[in-house]
Amino acid sequence: MWYQNDVTKNLGTKYPIIQAGMAGGITTPELVASVSNSGGLGTIGAGYMSVTDLNECIKHVKKQTNLPFGVNFFIPEEPEYSEEQLNQMQKLLKPFKKELNLFNDGPFILKQIDIERQMETVLKEKVPVCSFTFGIPPKEIMKELKKEGIQVIGTATTVEEALINQECGVDLIVAQGSEAGGHRGTFLGTYDESMIGTFSLLPQVVDAVEVPVIAAGGVMDGRGVVAALALGAKGVQMGTAFLTNKESGAKEIHKKAILQAEETSTTLTSAFSGKPARGITNSFIHMMKEYENQILPYPVQNALTKELRREAGNQRNPEFMSLWSGQSPRLSKDVNVHELMDSLVMEVEKGIHNLTGQ
Amino acid sequence: MWYQNDVTKNLGTKYPIIQAGMAGGITTPELVASVSNSGGLGTIGAGYMSVTDLNECIKHVKKQTNLPFGVNFFIPEEPEYSEEQLNQMQKLLKPFKKELNLFNDGPFILKQIDIERQMETVLKEKVPVCSFTFGIPPKEIMKELKKEGIQVIGTATTVEEALINQECGVDLIVAQGSEAGGHRGTFLGTYDESMIGTFSLLPQVVDAVEVPVIAAGGVMDGRGVVAALALGAKGVQMGTAFLTNKESGAKEIHKKAILQAEETSTTLTSAFSGKPARGITNSFIHMMKEYENQILPYPVQNALTKELRREAGNQRNPEFMSLWSGQSPRLSKDVNVHELMDSLVMEVEKGIHNLTGQ
Repeated sequence: MWYQNDVTKNLGTKYPIIQAGMAGGITTPELVASVSNSGGLGTIGAGYMSVTDLNECIKHVKKQTNLPFGVNFFIPEEPEYSEEQLNQMQKLLKPFKKELNLFNDGPFILKQIDIERQMETVLKEKVPVCSFTFGIPPKEIMKELKKEGIQVIGTATTVEEALINQECGVDLIVAQGSEAGGHRGTFLGTYDESMIGTFSLLPQVVDAVEVPVIAAGGVMDGRGVVAALALGAKGVQMGTAFLTNKESGAKEIHKKAILQAEETSTTLTSAFSGKPARGITNSFIHMMKEYENQILPYPVQNALTKELRREAGNQRNPEFMSLWSGQSPRLSKDVNVHELMDSLVMEVEKGIHNLTGQ
Repeated sequence: MWYQNDVTKNLGTKYPIIQAGMAGGITTPELVASVSNSGGLGTIGAGYMSVTDLNECIKHVKKQTNLPFGVNFFIPEEPEYSEEQLNQMQKLLKPFKKELNLFNDGPFILKQIDIERQMETVLKEKVPVCSFTFGIPPKEIMKELKKEGIQVIGTATTVEEALINQECGVDLIVAQGSEAGGHRGTFLGTYDESMIGTFSLLPQVVDAVEVPVIAAGGVMDGRGVVAALALGAKGVQMGTAFLTNKESGAKEIHKKAILQAEETSTTLTSAFSGKPARGITNSFIHMMKEYENQILPYPVQNALTKELRREAGNQRNPEFMSLWSGQSPRLSKDVNVHELMDSLVMEVEKGIHNLTGQ
């Protein structure tokens, strides 16, 4: 069968289908558990999570499934910026905040994510799978994870990044094509040169590494799964396709925006977080274009726009929200996870059948 | 069999594999005829060809094959520019020319391609297939082509462009993903928003139109063909994969640059022609980045850089040549057309076999 391969063997899932660990409240315990219960790998997006929240989320997932699931982490960075740049951006954001009736101007405190303590939680809770974005995990962390038999998934946007992931000892590599929604996983070279389409990226990464490769970027249905397998991937990671599901914690206005979007609706922007990410174009992205060179590094910019994004969500104002989406919103569906997974599997089997021509 | 479908029926070829009509001397009669003789559709890139050259090229192809072949045309545009802008760009290009020992500064004359007369040649010579880039063919031309039973292929980079092509009556639509080398076929909307990866573009176009869709962008081997079919395409169009073939008229230095390039080596630039195109980054692209807003519209910029590009080619200086390439140069091969086509077909069959898992 198409789904019996190294990926399902490593992950302990029925299907080589991974729900991307989207950060920012999208991956509710319900979403994660439903994906795992449907035969895929649900993933908690812990990118911005406190240790307490992560702990709680893991416990809630475990209550709803006995099957393997994962947690996705952001490799932390030390941003360099001056007080002056900070003040300038705060001043720039003021009119946007004013439009949403946000007036508090407390002192700026950057709360960095403590990945060491996040890892302690993962080890203590015996989370079966860990995936990483924005770089490779530090050696000590890799050692601990390996010791506990935890499967490690790395993220690469170029062949070079894939090779570095392999060298560091990951068990699987997600190859993220330029179609992908949300943040670019790029951690080497420039963002521009790392915008490789999934169709080009996959076979070139597959040829370069020995670890099984997972396709990400543009995979939305069974056709995408079959195409990814044809290009040499052993599995897929899907974000946008799960984001619009009933169990997803994405704001309704975000889901609606994707369900109504076209393939030309998205763009790359660093305006929300300081790192390029793909989302549906809106007023904020548009207006910030002019100030591109003033955007602060991740995660400072992210912290600066947090309140704005949250309040916009509360007010159902899509113009100031980060409406992450890949380039295939026309293929998104307003369904629950079981429905999506069932149709995916059916489509894959039909697709393979059609290729054999009988 | 995987290759018996509407595309091969319409085109009269054995395989649904089209060699892209790359302009600028790449599509020699030998290349075109070899592709057709190997079961694909060879295509003359007539984008910049005079009627005399086109006529001669068609006759040479016919001497070498009795099988169907095509001609690709650029829909002409009326560029708007001032004398001042022209002078400014000529001044800007002077130091580049000087580096190649080019000193002649004759008056600038823009020779526009006469598509009506090109069409007369096509009709007279009963060319079996015509494809178009940069827009849809005028109604009168469509009528003539249809009357003669000539198959018409349109090019689309978005769903909207595909729908307009369908409305105009084309028989097949090439969906050009962002991975593709050479010029973007975009003729509606902005170039930025039309950079849709093949993996996302294909299924969304397939869902929107009834005409068979041909995948372009990142297709280099049998894996790409199977993936394209899985995503709903009925065939593929390949440029870069044929460009490095022995029969191709591309300069050896161009072939060598692709054969040694990596997936991150290419970029989009308008510096050579006035229209965005994907090629391997070099000094000229790099240095012209700064003057992006001074670049003249196509085909004026193209005419202005013509001598520079040609002389750079003669001097084997890759830094001033337009080294068009898609995003999968690692998959390019220094082979002849027959070898490429044979391995393609073998790989497709192996790929389909592997998917069925037996």
